[in-house]
Amino acid sequence: MTTRPPAEIGMALEEVDTPALLIDLDAFERNLQHLANAVTGSSVRLRPHAKTHKCAVIGRRQMALGAVGVCCQKVGEAEAMVYGGVSNVLVSNEVVGVTKLKRLAALARQAQIYVCADDAGNVRDLNETALAYNVELPVLVEIDVGAHRCGVEPGEAVLALAQQIDQAPGLRFAGLQAYQGRAQHLRSFEERRQAIGQAVEQVQHTANLLSQHGLECELVSGAGSGTYAFEAGSGVYNELQAGSYIFMDVDYGKNLTADGTPWREFEHSLFVYATVMSRPNPDWAVVDAGLKALSVDSGLPMMADLPQSEYVGASDEHGKVLLHDPNSPVRLGDKLRLIPGHCDPTVNLYDWYVGLRNHRVEALWPIVARGAGR
Amino acid sequence: MTTRPPAEIGMALEEVDTPALLIDLDAFERNLQHLANAVTGSSVRLRPHAKTHKCAVIGRRQMALGAVGVCCQKVGEAEAMVYGGVSNVLVSNEVVGVTKLKRLAALARQAQIYVCADDAGNVRDLNETALAYNVELPVLVEIDVGAHRCGVEPGEAVLALAQQIDQAPGLRFAGLQAYQGRAQHLRSFEERRQAIGQAVEQVQHTANLLSQHGLECELVSGAGSGTYAFEAGSGVYNELQAGSYIFMDVDYGKNLTADGTPWREFEHSLFVYATVMSRPNPDWAVVDAGLKALSVDSGLPMMADLPQSEYVGASDEHGKVLLHDPNSPVRLGDKLRLIPGHCDPTVNLYDWYVGLRNHRVEALWPIVARGAGR
Repeated sequence: MTTRPPAEIGMALEEVDTPALLIDLDAFERNLQHLANAVTGSSVRLRPHAKTHKCAVIGRRQMALGAVGVCCQKVGEAEAMVYGGVSNVLVSNEVVGVTKLKRLAALARQAQIYVCADDAGNVRDLNETALAYNVELPVLVEIDVGAHRCGVEPGEAVLALAQQIDQAPGLRFAGLQAYQGRAQHLRSFEERRQAIGQAVEQVQHTANLLSQHGLECELVSGAGSGTYAFEAGSGVYNELQAGSYIFMDVDYGKNLTADGTPWREFEHSLFVYATVMSRPNPDWAVVDAGLKALSVDSGLPMMADLPQSEYVGASDEHGKVLLHDPNSPVRLGDKLRLIPGHCDPTVNLYDWYVGLRNHRVEALWPIVARGAGR
Repeated sequence: MTTRPPAEIGMALEEVDTPALLIDLDAFERNLQHLANAVTGSSVRLRPHAKTHKCAVIGRRQMALGAVGVCCQKVGEAEAMVYGGVSNVLVSNEVVGVTKLKRLAALARQAQIYVCADDAGNVRDLNETALAYNVELPVLVEIDVGAHRCGVEPGEAVLALAQQIDQAPGLRFAGLQAYQGRAQHLRSFEERRQAIGQAVEQVQHTANLLSQHGLECELVSGAGSGTYAFEAGSGVYNELQAGSYIFMDVDYGKNLTADGTPWREFEHSLFVYATVMSRPNPDWAVVDAGLKALSVDSGLPMMADLPQSEYVGASDEHGKVLLHDPNSPVRLGDKLRLIPGHCDPTVNLYDWYVGLRNHRVEALWPIVARGAGR
């Protein structure tokens, strides 16, 4: 159920109740501007992934800086974005089942909606629903460029599906969804470069094949925060779906640049704010942020304000922090900022962002697509 | 934000939209009855942990079967339980910070509320707030019986804190919080027995010391689903805080009994319902339940309806399932039940339970403390 906000506008940081999800607005805005600048003057457009933030306020900000629209992973996310004023959404995923197809088609009457497909039966269902709702749905074929999750094989399989879409009266063939998710967190620059190099080759080959059969790709959409520069420079991709760049998390912070140094192109701007709720021992503190306040699927959080300390274990509502300092000044009641291991599923645990500038609460943004998994 | 329910009363299981959180009501009720029966006629009472279910409907059912009240981990959970008709709550945790202390004291004017402490300064704050709200707060001292998280050391440290509580005009010393969380998932029966044996010894020693100083423990509260029988038979504990027994998860399913067989005292009654949303390859299917539909902190889910298959990887909104069967009948659009790896943080991702009996939706229970982390 929707929770009360943990803060009020104008509060000092220290007054914010915990656990709370903080945005450092200055760092966040620098991240947004940096990626916007990176594509300025090129033919590549941004379509940032809203699964990271689930917040229409942020989606509209991204569009104000030049993004052509956003991506969503679920119809429910797309509904939340459209209802919040985002006018252009690519559901970068397959939509399966009558209930969801109806919602997708109905939403396409209210905004520009793209969707992906990787199955002939699903294309038939998409077409029937589009006709029933009197919309023309633009459909991208999802192509497996190495993630080995959804998507058809490059080449002939894509052509067959694209032709089916092209011939369906309720649909329009709109291009390729070609996201190489596995490449995003390959630690070395060279590994990421190679993985995207292979993806680009497969996309290029497939786009050429489509073109030979009279099918042009309006969109070739893909890329994440970890690899966007490769897709941007590929000459093949024309949309970038990076999402995490707005926040950065511990996991992305482990990527390396070409010269082997930590990748610091974007700043950590998202924090879980936590209180020291037990200080039973000189060696450790316990904070009130555990598994229900941050997602540990990609590793544990880092302590932003106590870099020498170490968050070593999460239980449902507790985090144990080894202080590695017998004279640590950490006291019961202290509030500390944690950098989440993985931002996307962490955001999904909260109803509100608390936006801060100069240690004051400046924004309380509702996470309107929290829990919108359907 | 609160999501719409994924079902309507009377629907067939197959009509429920996905991802959804299902309860098999028959199995769930057998689990509730089994633990209620296990303590009938003894002096040990149940106080099941509501952090598992976060649902006042379930809390009231547990009390109707004899539970003396419930445990909560956060003040926000306790508020949700009290507002939903649960009249007796132990906050089995420390409550730190002015905002939360006020809410705790205000709630104690509306229901029977117990709280824990492990710090002298916090006891002073509890006392001041209780006096300000004109309530007498019963306080348990949390004792570290091997979990090495919160809690003071057994013996003299407990005595000092208990005496401070006893002398505080706004507080009443109410006993010991002695939960050995680390013992719950020790796989062998003997390991669990030994861990709880040590905890019991420490609790007994401490309770004797308190008694020698005129302080009796109204409550000695602890135990989880994995060890409850040991605490119940200890002669020292008089309340059991088991929570997960109502649902069972994959993690608890890995515990072993005394003769080395899998522990099957309780049944899996909680499922994440998912749709096959991509079937790109004979070897695997992709379901629409990933990191935002189930928590993977204690391991991946199991496929309840396809025991030979294997959920091998979760991304934000996808789960990859290896079928291990080249002739698998799994088709696009099929809906499958997954058994969560860890029930508590999985429940926290949903707003609604969909209760089923004989494959029909019989209940839609709101998860009123979803997200109530403060």
